[in-house]
Amino acid sequence: MKKTILRLLLAAALLPLHAVAQSITRLNPTNWWVGMKNSSVQLLVYGPQAGTLTYTIAYPGVKLVKANTVENPNYAFLDLSIAPTAKPGLVKLIGKKGTQTITQSWELKARDNAPKGQGVTQADFIYLAMPDRFANGDPSNDKFADMRDPSSDRANPFLRHGGDLQGAAQRLGYLKDLGITAVWFTPVIENNQPLTNEGGTMRASYHGYGFTDHYAIDRRLGGNAAYKAYVQQAHAAGLKVVQDAVYNHIGNTHWFIQDLPMKSWLHQWPTYTNTSYRQQPITDPHASQIDRKITLDGWFVPFLPDLNQQNPYVANFLIQHAIWSVENFGVDAWRIDTYMYNDQPFMNRCNAALLAEYPRIHIFGESSVNNVVDQSYYVRNNINFPFKSNQPGGLDFVLEGAMVEGLKEGGAQRMYEALAQDAVYQDPTKLVTFLDNHDHDRFLSVMGEDFDKFKMGLTWLLTTRGIPSMYYGTEILMKNLKNPTDAEVRKDFPGGWPGDQQDKFTAAGRTARENEAFTFVRTLATYRRDHKTLSTGKLMQYLPENGTYVYFRYDATGTVLVATNTTDKPVALPTGRFSERMSGFSKAHNVLTNETLNNLNTLQLPAKTAVVLELVK
Amino acid sequence: MKKTILRLLLAAALLPLHAVAQSITRLNPTNWWVGMKNSSVQLLVYGPQAGTLTYTIAYPGVKLVKANTVENPNYAFLDLSIAPTAKPGLVKLIGKKGTQTITQSWELKARDNAPKGQGVTQADFIYLAMPDRFANGDPSNDKFADMRDPSSDRANPFLRHGGDLQGAAQRLGYLKDLGITAVWFTPVIENNQPLTNEGGTMRASYHGYGFTDHYAIDRRLGGNAAYKAYVQQAHAAGLKVVQDAVYNHIGNTHWFIQDLPMKSWLHQWPTYTNTSYRQQPITDPHASQIDRKITLDGWFVPFLPDLNQQNPYVANFLIQHAIWSVENFGVDAWRIDTYMYNDQPFMNRCNAALLAEYPRIHIFGESSVNNVVDQSYYVRNNINFPFKSNQPGGLDFVLEGAMVEGLKEGGAQRMYEALAQDAVYQDPTKLVTFLDNHDHDRFLSVMGEDFDKFKMGLTWLLTTRGIPSMYYGTEILMKNLKNPTDAEVRKDFPGGWPGDQQDKFTAAGRTARENEAFTFVRTLATYRRDHKTLSTGKLMQYLPENGTYVYFRYDATGTVLVATNTTDKPVALPTGRFSERMSGFSKAHNVLTNETLNNLNTLQLPAKTAVVLELVK
Repeated sequence: MKKTILRLLLAAALLPLHAVAQSITRLNPTNWWVGMKNSSVQLLVYGPQAGTLTYTIAYPGVKLVKANTVENPNYAFLDLSIAPTAKPGLVKLIGKKGTQTITQSWELKARDNAPKGQGVTQADFIYLAMPDRFANGDPSNDKFADMRDPSSDRANPFLRHGGDLQGAAQRLGYLKDLGITAVWFTPVIENNQPLTNEGGTMRASYHGYGFTDHYAIDRRLGGNAAYKAYVQQAHAAGLKVVQDAVYNHIGNTHWFIQDLPMKSWLHQWPTYTNTSYRQQPITDPHASQIDRKITLDGWFVPFLPDLNQQNPYVANFLIQHAIWSVENFGVDAWRIDTYMYNDQPFMNRCNAALLAEYPRIHIFGESSVNNVVDQSYYVRNNINFPFKSNQPGGLDFVLEGAMVEGLKEGGAQRMYEALAQDAVYQDPTKLVTFLDNHDHDRFLSVMGEDFDKFKMGLTWLLTTRGIPSMYYGTEILMKNLKNPTDAEVRKDFPGGWPGDQQDKFTAAGRTARENEAFTFVRTLATYRRDHKTLSTGKLMQYLPENGTYVYFRYDATGTVLVATNTTDKPVALPTGRFSERMSGFSKAHNVLTNETLNNLNTLQLPAKTAVVLELVK
Repeated sequence: MKKTILRLLLAAALLPLHAVAQSITRLNPTNWWVGMKNSSVQLLVYGPQAGTLTYTIAYPGVKLVKANTVENPNYAFLDLSIAPTAKPGLVKLIGKKGTQTITQSWELKARDNAPKGQGVTQADFIYLAMPDRFANGDPSNDKFADMRDPSSDRANPFLRHGGDLQGAAQRLGYLKDLGITAVWFTPVIENNQPLTNEGGTMRASYHGYGFTDHYAIDRRLGGNAAYKAYVQQAHAAGLKVVQDAVYNHIGNTHWFIQDLPMKSWLHQWPTYTNTSYRQQPITDPHASQIDRKITLDGWFVPFLPDLNQQNPYVANFLIQHAIWSVENFGVDAWRIDTYMYNDQPFMNRCNAALLAEYPRIHIFGESSVNNVVDQSYYVRNNINFPFKSNQPGGLDFVLEGAMVEGLKEGGAQRMYEALAQDAVYQDPTKLVTFLDNHDHDRFLSVMGEDFDKFKMGLTWLLTTRGIPSMYYGTEILMKNLKNPTDAEVRKDFPGGWPGDQQDKFTAAGRTARENEAFTFVRTLATYRRDHKTLSTGKLMQYLPENGTYVYFRYDATGTVLVATNTTDKPVALPTGRFSERMSGFSKAHNVLTNETLNNLNTLQLPAKTAVVLELVK
C-alpha cells in the first residue's frame, strides 16, 4: 500500500511540466466566512500543475499573504488574510503561468445566526449511534454504482445497510421522548473506500473512520444537504449534535492520498509499522523515543494512512476543516477519534482554534487508557506533565471499566475508587461517561443479561458526575459480545428500515421487558433533564460498605441520594453515617418507583438495586 | 480502654490541688543541644501539680518565653528560646508555688561531630529487620521482671525472643559482606506494653509500634546506650542507620496516656472507632468529612491510642523527639510508620523541621495504597492536590504490588505500567522499593517458592529506579505466608541465638541453595554499590513484548541493560529495537554469570531469567 503511494508521488514529480495543462480541480476549504475571529485561512489549491501557477487575488479585504509550493507540483497552499471589513461574495483566484490564466471562484459567505457550537454539559444525555445501522429514511441512497464499494446488503453484517441522516431525522422525536438531548453519530464524512479484506472477510467502511474527502458528507448518508437539514431539525427539536472527528488518519483512497502533496504529509516508515496501541510510552518519563514514535506515528490499521500533524500544511488543513464543519453544519460538540494517537501540540492548537471561534463548544476525545494518570494527560489536568493538554473533556474509559468490571464482579468498589481519583482532572464533570460503545461488548451482555445489574449500571451512568452517553439500542436491550466480530454489536435498530417486521421505536413493537428498559431509561433521563441538581450539583460519595454504596448529588436547590445494594439480599441501611448530607431532610421521593418515604432513618434497599431518592425537607 | 483513660484524666483533674506535693518527675525532651538551627524548644514538665508552679530559668542565653498550663495540672509546657550564644551546661529550672521551690536540671549539650542524618539514596541497599528476631547478643536483657510483659520465650511465636542491638551489632560484618549499606530496624523505642489478647492469643509488643516512653530505647534491646553504640559501630563499618518512627499512635500504657495532659491529646470518639484503613477519603475530592475523619482519626488498633497532632503540644512533642533522636543517636534516615494516617500538615511541619537541621536526611513514610495518585499524595509530587506534601520519599507500595503480582502471574507488564506512571512524583528515585516486609507475605512464598521468579524479583529490585530495601532473611530463603498469623513471617534468623543448631550467618551453616541465594543477592548488591550507573543513572524502559521486558540504567559513565524473559522457554531477543541505548556498544559483561558477550545483535535469554549486562564499547 505504501509502495503504491510512493509510486504515485514519484510519477507526479517526474512528469515534464509542459506535458500537463494547468487547471484547478479542488479548493479546500470549499468556502469560508467573513467575520471569523481568526482572519487567516490557508487555501489548498489542487489540480494538474496547480503549484506551478503564480497566484493573485483581487477582492476587497482579502490578501494573498504568501503562496507556498511543495514537493508535488499539483498543489499550492495559499496563505490568505481576510480583513474584518471583507464582504461576503465570490473571491476570484487568478493563477498565471506564461500566457495561461486560470481563474477560480471561492466563496466567502456571511455567517448565519443558527445555533452552533452550543456545547454539551452534564445537563445533556448523549445518544451514540452508527448512522448506517440506525434508520434508513431514503432507500434510494443506500448504494451508488460509481462509488468504490457499490454494495449494500442488510443480510451481511459487514456491508453497508443503508441507514442515513434522513432516517435519523425521522427518529428525533423518539430520542427526545427517551430523554436524549444530544446525538453523536459515528463519522458522517465521505468514506468512499473499497471493501477491505480483514482476515478473509470483506468489510465495508460503514464505521466512517476512513475519510476520503473531508468536505463531503457521505452520499449514502444523504450528503452535505441532508446533514445540514438533520442538524437544523435536531436543533428545532431541542437536541444537540455531536460530530465525530478524525484527525489521526484518513482512508487510503482519500483523494490527497492518491496524489500525496509531499512525503511528510503522512507518517512514513521504511516498512509498514502499526501503532502498538499502547498508552504508556506517551506519559512514561522513562520511555524510549522509538516506543513513543510507534504509538504515535505507527498506523492504526494498514488501510488508514497516518497523518503527520507536525507538517504545518496538514495541521492547517485539519484545523480549518474542524472550524468549517461547525460553521457550515452548526454542530454543537466535537468528539475526537483516537485522540491519544494524535500529535498533542497539534491537538492543543486545534482545540484552541475551535474554542476561539466557539467558546461554548465541548470537545471530548477518545483515549482508551486504563488509569487516571494517563486519562488526565489528554484533558485539562492537575498534573505537571511536561506537556499540558487544553482539551476540555474526554471519554471516561477509566470509569467505564470501573463501573462495568465492578458490576460484573457484583460490587461498586471499583467505581468508587475511580471517582476517588478525580483530583487529577481540572474538571471531571466534563468527562463523557458511558457503559459501552460501538467498539466494546454491549453492556447488557457483559452483565450476563442480568437485568438488575443492567439497571444499576444505567442508574449510576445517569446520576454520577460527568456527561452521560448511551450506545443506541441499550434502551431496547440490544445485546451481544464482539465475539466473533464487532459487527455483533452494530446490528440494525429494529424498525429503522421500511418493512421491518418489528418496530422497536414504538411501545407496541417492544416486548414488555424492552418497554421496562425503555421506561427505566426515560424516567431517569427525564428526571435528570428536569432537575439541575443532577447536572450542576456536587457529588459526595461514601466508602462502600458491606455491598452498599451511597452517594449524593447536591446543590442549593436540592439533594439526590443514590443508594446501591449490590448484594443479592435486601439490606436495611441505617442513614446516620450520611448525616452530613441528610440532616434537615425528613422525607424522600423515590424517582424510579414514585413512592414517598416518610422515614429516612433506615433505607430499605432491595437486592441488586440502585435506589434514587430526591430528599424532601 | 478509652473509658479508663477518661477516668484517669478526670481523676487527676478533680483532685484538690493542695492534696498533692508538687514535684517534677519528667522533662521531655530529656536534654537539648546548643547550636541547633531552630532556637525554640517546648519543654514538657511533668510531675504532681507541676502545672501549678511558676517557672523561672536562670541560664545565660536561655529564655523562658512562655509557660503554658493545660487541663491536667500535672503538666507544664515551657516555651524556651536558646540563643546561639548559649553554652553547654546544666540549665536550672526553678518552679515556685507559695513557699515551695523545686529545682530541676536540664542539660544543654554540645553537638558532637559524629555522622548523623547522612540520608539514604539509590546508592544504598537497606536491610529491614525486627531486632527481637534477628540476633541475641545479650541474653541477660531478654526480659525484665519489672516490665509489664516480663516474658520471653522463643518457643512461642507471639512472645519476645530476646534479639537485641548488641546481637545486631555483631552481625554488621555479615550485612556489609552481603552488600547492605543501611539497616532499618522496626522501632527500638521502649514498648513497655502488657501482653495483648488478640483473638484469644496473647501477644507481646515485640513489633515495637506501641511506644511507652519516647526518650527510652527498650531495655530488652539494650537501652539508649546500646543503641548509641550500635549506631557508632554501624557507622564505623560504613553502614547507615534508618530509624523507624511512629507519630500516629503510642502504646496504651505510655506514661502520658496514664495521666493524659488534656482530652484533645488524643483523637477522642464517643465510642471506640477504628480507622477504616481506607486511603480514598483523604484524596477523593468527593469524600465526606466523616469518612475522612474515620480514616485519619480512627484508631489503628484498640491498644494504640491515636495522637491528635493538631494539638500544638502533641505536635511539638513529636517534632522535638524526632530531632532529639537524630541528634542523640546519629541516625541517618527516618522511616515513618502509618504515614497516611497522620495529620498531613503536621507531617509537613515535622519533615521540614528535620530537614532544616539535617538537610541530607532521607524521610520515607509507609502509606500502604494501591495506586500512584494516592501514593504521590504523600510525597513531593507533580499533582496540584489541595494539600502539597513535602516528604522527600516514601515506601513504594505500588511498585511492590506491581512486581510481586506481576511475577506471580508470570509477567513484567504490571511493573512496566507502574513505573510508566512516575510522572506523578517529583523524584521517583527517592522512593524506597521492596518485595515484602514484616507485614506482608514473604516474597519467596508468594512466588510459590519458585527460585527463578525469586531471582527475577531480586534482580528488578536491585536494578530498577528507587532505593532498594530487603526484608531480613530473604537472602537465606526465609519463607512463609502470614497465614495463620504474621508471626509466620517474623521468625528468628537462624544462628542469631547462642546455641542455635544452624548458623545461617555463615556459608557453612547455609544449604547450597541458600548460599546460591546469598551469593546472588551479594553479587547484585555489591555490583550496584560499586557502579554509580545503577545509583545515579537514568532509567529507560521498553514496552514488554512476548514475555520479555528490557530496561536500561545509563549515564555518562556507563550503560547497564536488564533483559527479563518471564516465559518458561528460552528466547533469542533481537536488540535492534533498543538501538537508542545500545548503539556504540559491541560487547557486554554479564554481571551475574561473569561471562563476556561478544555479539549484542541478539540476546540469548534463558527461561524465567533476568539478565544484567554491563555494556562495553
